[in-house]
Amino acid sequence: MNHNFCVIMAGGAGTRFWPMSTSAYPKQFIDFFGTGKSLLQMTLDRFRPLIPIEHFFIVTSERYYQVVKTQLPELKDEQILLEPFRRNTAPCIAYANGRIRQIDPDANIVVTPSDHLIYNEQSFVEHISSALACTENNAWLLTLGIQPTRPETGYGYIQYDEKNSYLPDPRISKVKLFTEKPQLELAKHFLESGDFLWNAGIFVWKAAVIRQAFERYLPEIHNLFLSIEEDLGTEREKASIERIYTECTSISIDYGVMEKAENVNVLASDFGWTDLGTWSSLHEQIRLHEQTKLDEEGNALLTQANNTFLYKSSNNIIAVPKEKVAVVEGLDGYIVAVTDEVVLICRKEEEQNIRQFVTDVQIVKGDIFV
Amino acid sequence: MNHNFCVIMAGGAGTRFWPMSTSAYPKQFIDFFGTGKSLLQMTLDRFRPLIPIEHFFIVTSERYYQVVKTQLPELKDEQILLEPFRRNTAPCIAYANGRIRQIDPDANIVVTPSDHLIYNEQSFVEHISSALACTENNAWLLTLGIQPTRPETGYGYIQYDEKNSYLPDPRISKVKLFTEKPQLELAKHFLESGDFLWNAGIFVWKAAVIRQAFERYLPEIHNLFLSIEEDLGTEREKASIERIYTECTSISIDYGVMEKAENVNVLASDFGWTDLGTWSSLHEQIRLHEQTKLDEEGNALLTQANNTFLYKSSNNIIAVPKEKVAVVEGLDGYIVAVTDEVVLICRKEEEQNIRQFVTDVQIVKGDIFV
Repeated sequence: MNHNFCVIMAGGAGTRFWPMSTSAYPKQFIDFFGTGKSLLQMTLDRFRPLIPIEHFFIVTSERYYQVVKTQLPELKDEQILLEPFRRNTAPCIAYANGRIRQIDPDANIVVTPSDHLIYNEQSFVEHISSALACTENNAWLLTLGIQPTRPETGYGYIQYDEKNSYLPDPRISKVKLFTEKPQLELAKHFLESGDFLWNAGIFVWKAAVIRQAFERYLPEIHNLFLSIEEDLGTEREKASIERIYTECTSISIDYGVMEKAENVNVLASDFGWTDLGTWSSLHEQIRLHEQTKLDEEGNALLTQANNTFLYKSSNNIIAVPKEKVAVVEGLDGYIVAVTDEVVLICRKEEEQNIRQFVTDVQIVKGDIFV
Repeated sequence: MNHNFCVIMAGGAGTRFWPMSTSAYPKQFIDFFGTGKSLLQMTLDRFRPLIPIEHFFIVTSERYYQVVKTQLPELKDEQILLEPFRRNTAPCIAYANGRIRQIDPDANIVVTPSDHLIYNEQSFVEHISSALACTENNAWLLTLGIQPTRPETGYGYIQYDEKNSYLPDPRISKVKLFTEKPQLELAKHFLESGDFLWNAGIFVWKAAVIRQAFERYLPEIHNLFLSIEEDLGTEREKASIERIYTECTSISIDYGVMEKAENVNVLASDFGWTDLGTWSSLHEQIRLHEQTKLDEEGNALLTQANNTFLYKSSNNIIAVPKEKVAVVEGLDGYIVAVTDEVVLICRKEEEQNIRQFVTDVQIVKGDIFV
């Protein structure tokens, strides 16, 4: 029997990729590269060599039920866990863990975000496979750390201890410290010191081990989910989840468990990872991604539909639905994102203001465009 | 009985305002100023104080029949004359003249384009009224000339003779010369000399007088329309018009008649006129138009829907349908035009290239976007 399970957290609703990403259709559901697959679909595909299809669980918001069903038609309804509202990652993981324990008390689980990119999928599978082998035999909370290549200020970092010879894989170390996103100076120091990894937010553990950790470090959340344990998988599930979510603290698994627990180890990885966080990072990813490329003037086109006509334009990132046409003349270094309802034109170096633009649109026009 | 008639030529299909203006929906049908009226509707309204509604005739292409019906529901079908293809202004005027002579052999007619702007409508009505009074009693081909205010190279010019005391209105002169669009140096010379006016393309004459001119200067066209005179207003009209249009030369009334005839006079006018020819001129018109204005940074917004959000942007002209939203950051001096199918972003000083962009889109995507 295969005890491997995968929990994909797909409830995010950010506006950093607005207007392509909206609260009604956030980035994990978007096919950014025009390859026919959304980030969510790419995430699931990546784990398929290791995990049987019936062992996947998607945790998402009620409002995304239909889009998940459409994008992952191979999943049964009971594999899509719906949160009534967002409560950060800890309750999300507790919920999925409860459901999986019912099915297989010996479950060995990978928990992953749904909006990351991996360049070397073969290496990724090998790392996850090693990680699952470790947690199969060790009562660890294992997290994946990425060998940093630049002093990135947009990621959290994990400091690891000296390698311990008792550990079964030379890439695994005990975790000394989790840190929040650092300032640039600190990030440079982390990079130089050589004992920091990027926190990829991918976790591997047995259901019983993370349950114990909840019991110890997040007892309130643990008890709430314990109180409805028998309702999971029954017709009472929806009502019970709604009830306890209203009482549940909003807290991340990093802050609530990983930073406190003692059995936390990290697997240093180098499979080429990125958190697709900004338009500029997307531009960079398109340059790097093996299936995509920039044009000769450094423009990144997000569709392969021959529908973007560029003149005297360079270093732009341009997203136009395949059924529309864009003609762009005389732009350098801009984001041009077009949807049925919205056109955004913004210099790349000003993209941190998009959040404010979205708020302004919301104030004047209501939620319809956001 | 009111003998005044008006022929509105509304068959143009230019792409200079693409993508707002397309061959399926050209500029005369567009509400550029968000006032609820298209240029065609504004044109008809302008003549209403002088001309009974049943004396208007719109000459347009067959493909625009439905949009004319929709925009001018007060007109009867027989007031919309459909050309099977474009043959410039002379055949268009011959066709309308034939139909109007059937109704009223003493008709006194204003012929006008449908895509011009007039600032002082009261003054305009006064000028047209004077013009009609003149042609009522004189066998003239009268054209309206606009007092030039700048050395414009985009208009044709009319040179007038010394004022002749036998003429009934001191603003009327005999025409000495029609000229094509001049180079800048020549335009400056025209402006300084003081005896040149802009050619507005608005003509006033009796049906019998222009008919005589056709007979003399464009006998082939005259004979073609003579041959089907009895078919006009009958069920044979459509077939007959189609037949003679295939044989008809494509020629302008200016070149075919006005430049050759001897009874041509010009009424010097100053009612504030512009041929809305380019996005940049539209920008300028919005600055001047009494119902519209630029924002504090010199941006012209073509809708009044509060749907354009501008940041660090100036001197742009921005057209966004009212049901959509545009967010524009960091643009100076651009055209941003959005339709359901197309987004155009182009520096104003490069707008002469739009024609080429349209051709490029047409080559790759076919006619659907053009």
